[in-house]
Amino acid sequence: MSPVTPLASFDDMTVGQTFAFGSFVMTLPEILDFAHRWDPQPFHTDPEAAKASIWGGLVASGLHTQCAAFSLMIRSGLFSRISLGGTGQDIQWPAPVWPGDRIAMTGVVEALRVSNSKPDRGLARMRYTGRREADGVTVIEIVTTHILKR
Amino acid sequence: MSPVTPLASFDDMTVGQTFAFGSFVMTLPEILDFAHRWDPQPFHTDPEAAKASIWGGLVASGLHTQCAAFSLMIRSGLFSRISLGGTGQDIQWPAPVWPGDRIAMTGVVEALRVSNSKPDRGLARMRYTGRREADGVTVIEIVTTHILKR
Repeated sequence: MSPVTPLASFDDMTVGQTFAFGSFVMTLPEILDFAHRWDPQPFHTDPEAAKASIWGGLVASGLHTQCAAFSLMIRSGLFSRISLGGTGQDIQWPAPVWPGDRIAMTGVVEALRVSNSKPDRGLARMRYTGRREADGVTVIEIVTTHILKR
Repeated sequence: MSPVTPLASFDDMTVGQTFAFGSFVMTLPEILDFAHRWDPQPFHTDPEAAKASIWGGLVASGLHTQCAAFSLMIRSGLFSRISLGGTGQDIQWPAPVWPGDRIAMTGVVEALRVSNSKPDRGLARMRYTGRREADGVTVIEIVTTHILKR
């Protein structure tokens, strides 16, 4: 794993390169707060009602896990000098996130290409994976293409 | 377009069925607040710095547009009686969202199938589209599969 230091150019990246971003905790108050604001479904907002859901207890909104994971990556500064934006994200939540879960995030460079129309920019497809530290289970995967300065 | 009233069962859905969820506004204070919390990049947090970005001005975080769009759909109540959860989302942001933009959301049923392992559940793949009301430009598309009660 490469240490996370700000990249100076898209051209410094290589396919297969990996990064470790550290971890974040999904606390119950934050799970409830996020869910009330953006995803008010009983299995995200009501611990009692959640017991009767297919999850058997309160689970975090997948949007919350996605935002927390993406925020950790952004705050790492990896792309802070070269990020120009992005055009999409493909999210998978293969397992639920429970209150108190600590999620460790890594990233791998899946594909790189120089923009055809703007040769001063590169497109980097990254796969970010979040694993629950307690059992190593993958709880989120984000595949996204960053527009980066060369 | 069907009116948005709570569905009683997965079995009430048909492929091609469409729904109109109304609209939401992306205000500047909300764009800044969301970006500071989840996506602190200068073109989302700093109106001055954003002028020098490829966007030419401050744009909303795509995560913010996604959360606002999904929230509108959830609050419509369409799936409130039958939603059991979801396992992923595929997001595209084909155009930037500017402060003050009002985004109208629609949804279409793309695919339906009964769960093989749990025949009391159905899987509904939905495509949600958000268009800026001012010019009709699509600013977000969300494709996601809902787990629903039959």
